Amino acid sequence: MPGLSVHAVDVARGVPAHGMAVDVFALAPARRRIAEGRLSATGTLDHAIVTERLPAGAYEVVFHAGAFFAAQGVAQADPPFLADVPFRFTIADPDQHYHLPMKITPWGFSLYRGS
Amino acid sequence: MPGLSVHAVDVARGVPAHGMAVDVFALAPARRRIAEGRLSATGTLDHAIVTERLPAGAYEVVFHAGAFFAAQGVAQADPPFLADVPFRFTIADPDQHYHLPMKITPWGFSLYRGS
Amino acid sequence: MPGLSVHAVDVARGVPAHGMAVDVFALAPARRRIAEGRLSATGTLDHAIVTERLPAGAYEVVFHAGAFFAAQGVAQADPPFLADVPFRFTIADPDQHYHLPMKITPWGFSLYRGS
Amino acid sequence: MPGLSVHAVDVARGVPAHGMAVDVFALAPARRRIAEGRLSATGTLDHAIVTERLPAGAYEVVFHAGAFFAAQGVAQADPPFLADVPFRFTIADPDQHYHLPMKITPWGFSLYRGS
Repeated sequence: MPGLSVHAVDVARGVPAHGMAVDVFALAPARRRIAEGRLSATGTLDHAIVTERLPAGAYEVVFHAGAFFAAQGVAQADPPFLADVPFRFTIADPDQHYHLPMKITPWGFSLYRGS
Repeated sequence: MPGLSVHAVDVARGVPAHGMAVDVFALAPARRRIAEGRLSATGTLDHAIVTERLPAGAYEVVFHAGAFFAAQGVAQADPPFLADVPFRFTIADPDQHYHLPMKITPWGFSLYRGS
Repeated sequence: MPGLSVHAVDVARGVPAHGMAVDVFALAPARRRIAEGRLSATGTLDHAIVTERLPAGAYEVVFHAGAFFAAQGVAQADPPFLADVPFRFTIADPDQHYHLPMKITPWGFSLYRGS
Repeated sequence: MPGLSVHAVDVARGVPAHGMAVDVFALAPARRRIAEGRLSATGTLDHAIVTERLPAGAYEVVFHAGAFFAAQGVAQADPPFLADVPFRFTIADPDQHYHLPMKITPWGFSLYRGS
């Protein structure tokens, strides 16, 4: 199954990042938003791109982490250390699925190609 | 001690990311490169910004990961999943030191405020 | 849904840790193995504990990482830096599900409560 | 320089895990504690093993995370998801230094061979 899926966990509290706003951009031939939304109660972005065949090329997912932690009342620096977190990656094979699990706290994150 | 330091480890091989090219940008009032270089044998960016007082505001460090892994002969997708990896963060207090330890493989990374 | 699930990704190669042997132990009242198996092609441990209600208490999952990387021909130290990797945690609420996503390379890992 | 060093960051709050109790065990020929202490204000274990040549073999570092977060007033499950966190690894070459940077929250951690 092709497509792009995102899954974010607030690992400071051990819960899905429910409500975090996320934007997805294709970067070529010009930067263009292809998806937006808020993460679900299970931490996923429920959107057509999850099963859509996406052209090979560079993409960027932006996680609006600072606003999310502020809305949740989680302590942060002022202004937050992490505001809008970009993750840039390349789809080499449009027939593969790209799953991006993220762990995040107000002070850092990890992101990798999952399965 | 104020300043900004970076430290990257190639956690696929358990070694410092020696030779990885890194750029550091201040993002405000306009995007402007304030440092560049290659990581040392211990994985650090040896540059004046390590001890320099940096104005409060948004910054971006770009890690040229794809070229690094290619030069090291590490297997990657073609084109690489991670090419130039941006990390965007905010310095709230110019009198504090911001240390950014990164763990990276060709398929993901973690980055957080260290100490 | 109660239960315990495991999911491991070989983040050095960007693939599920397909074939890695895993043991799960309850630690109280005495150490006792409650599950064993090899991770599936998607990196999961397919076992009855995934949906089973487990008593509150301490547990340990052991990931046989060294043997896995050896079998895959992945370069490691000799003997491997990581051989059998224990992860010890506590189930406080038997009615909740405990999902444990792991990222691993021959030189380190991350493990946290996911969703 | 040979030896074993530890460095832990509370990545939920972006600070060193100052005061966390840590034990270090050699596992062969029999389990035996070789170091204990509390992490310093910078997150390190200041102990003779940092520069000591340690025999090749298996070791375990135990991080008393649950007690640490409780003492810091950080919200956790009751009982904590992570209580005493073991990290087991092997020193293959006694002439090399083994540096273990850890990132931890009450819900997960990452640990790898750093530099």
